Amino acid sequence: MRELLVIGIGAGDPDQVTIQAVKAMNRADVFFVIGKGTEKQELVDLRTGLLAEHVTHPYRVVDIVDPPRDRTPSDYEGVVDDWHERRAALFEAEFGATGEDVGAILVWGDPALYDSTIRIVERVLARGNVAFDWSVIPGVTSVHALTAAHRMVLHRVGEPVHITTGRRLAEGLPAGIDNAVVMLDANCTFTQVPGEDLEIWWGAYLGTPDEVLISGNLREVEAEIVRVRAELREHKGWIMDTYLLRRG
Amino acid sequence: MRELLVIGIGAGDPDQVTIQAVKAMNRADVFFVIGKGTEKQELVDLRTGLLAEHVTHPYRVVDIVDPPRDRTPSDYEGVVDDWHERRAALFEAEFGATGEDVGAILVWGDPALYDSTIRIVERVLARGNVAFDWSVIPGVTSVHALTAAHRMVLHRVGEPVHITTGRRLAEGLPAGIDNAVVMLDANCTFTQVPGEDLEIWWGAYLGTPDEVLISGNLREVEAEIVRVRAELREHKGWIMDTYLLRRG
Repeated sequence: MRELLVIGIGAGDPDQVTIQAVKAMNRADVFFVIGKGTEKQELVDLRTGLLAEHVTHPYRVVDIVDPPRDRTPSDYEGVVDDWHERRAALFEAEFGATGEDVGAILVWGDPALYDSTIRIVERVLARGNVAFDWSVIPGVTSVHALTAAHRMVLHRVGEPVHITTGRRLAEGLPAGIDNAVVMLDANCTFTQVPGEDLEIWWGAYLGTPDEVLISGNLREVEAEIVRVRAELREHKGWIMDTYLLRRG
Repeated sequence: MRELLVIGIGAGDPDQVTIQAVKAMNRADVFFVIGKGTEKQELVDLRTGLLAEHVTHPYRVVDIVDPPRDRTPSDYEGVVDDWHERRAALFEAEFGATGEDVGAILVWGDPALYDSTIRIVERVLARGNVAFDWSVIPGVTSVHALTAAHRMVLHRVGEPVHITTGRRLAEGLPAGIDNAVVMLDANCTFTQVPGEDLEIWWGAYLGTPDEVLISGNLREVEAEIVRVRAELREHKGWIMDTYLLRRG
């Protein structure tokens, strides 16, 4: 039986991969790298560097060109569904065509958090054209790279943790939620959250040499974060950032 | 300047530590192990085994005997506060007494999630009797060990993730929350969550050879989880488990 490994590789620091991930990488004959387009070439390079550093045997890398995706659709779920189906077909064609026994997909952070790889693998299996065993290797998420960099706990004593997206935050925080980690927020939605008694801990390029951290009272630092974020994005051509908001 | 490293070591699998954690462990002269009482000796042994496997230089282990804590207090926050203060005093006395430059505290999972180490370090620094630099190394949490074992995503497309405690779940899930990871639930609070259209993914001793997984419709599998959990706890003398609940 062929095998597919879905491997979490942490937020960006090559040392933030686990020994389990390194062992899994060393079992793989072929790595599927799903490109995000030229503007994120630096991320593809980081991933390639990780392989070069940790894998001790010869391996093949197969690039899967990411189908374009409408980033501001009216039918968000329908567009995502269609995009997953096309990715599944592309992956199926590639994995089906290789003669290798063990394939791997490297996932930034952890495969369970705002990543589509597991859904795509399930789709490939459901299509029934390629059969394989598969397993998931957990990774350190950008959530924990953020809290480690700020040396903080995600919640106050006994409180829940809420992890959400910029898209959801635009609809407001649910009642009773005082801590929220926000991911995938291209629009600086924190500026739309009302209230004076809020703190923010923000981080970009977490775990990489370009890591930038800003924290403080939200109303006092929000303009600085918006400005720094725009400058960094302009300078590098892309940005990955996340933040924790807390009500006082 | 002396240094303290707070190191996340994953949920239980010795391979689920990161390379960053292994490098940090190898910089430490002394490890502070905060014991949880005799019933969890197996966890202390797991941690000791981790050190033996990954640390290549001589090191010292200082056991800090955990002060007893009232598990069912009426004034929960007051009791926790007092318990943190006593832990801080114990740690301060031990770290102050050692001549070593670099100390480390190993934390199961990640130091940012339902762990008191960071709060205690902040208290020790605030007391002002010992001075040191400190940093936090993130780890793989039991949340991600759970989802990896079940090969699943924490949320449906675009949905938020909610991480909470058994204590909080007893008050009900917040409105609009359809996914919740529940930790620290000694009372099988999932049996109190009303509704037929709920799924559960449960795991105990995640990442260890004793890992047990159960999943399915909550109403169909809840009795089995309660029974298996009680048997495992009786058999081993302790249990660590976590689960994801999802509304249909």
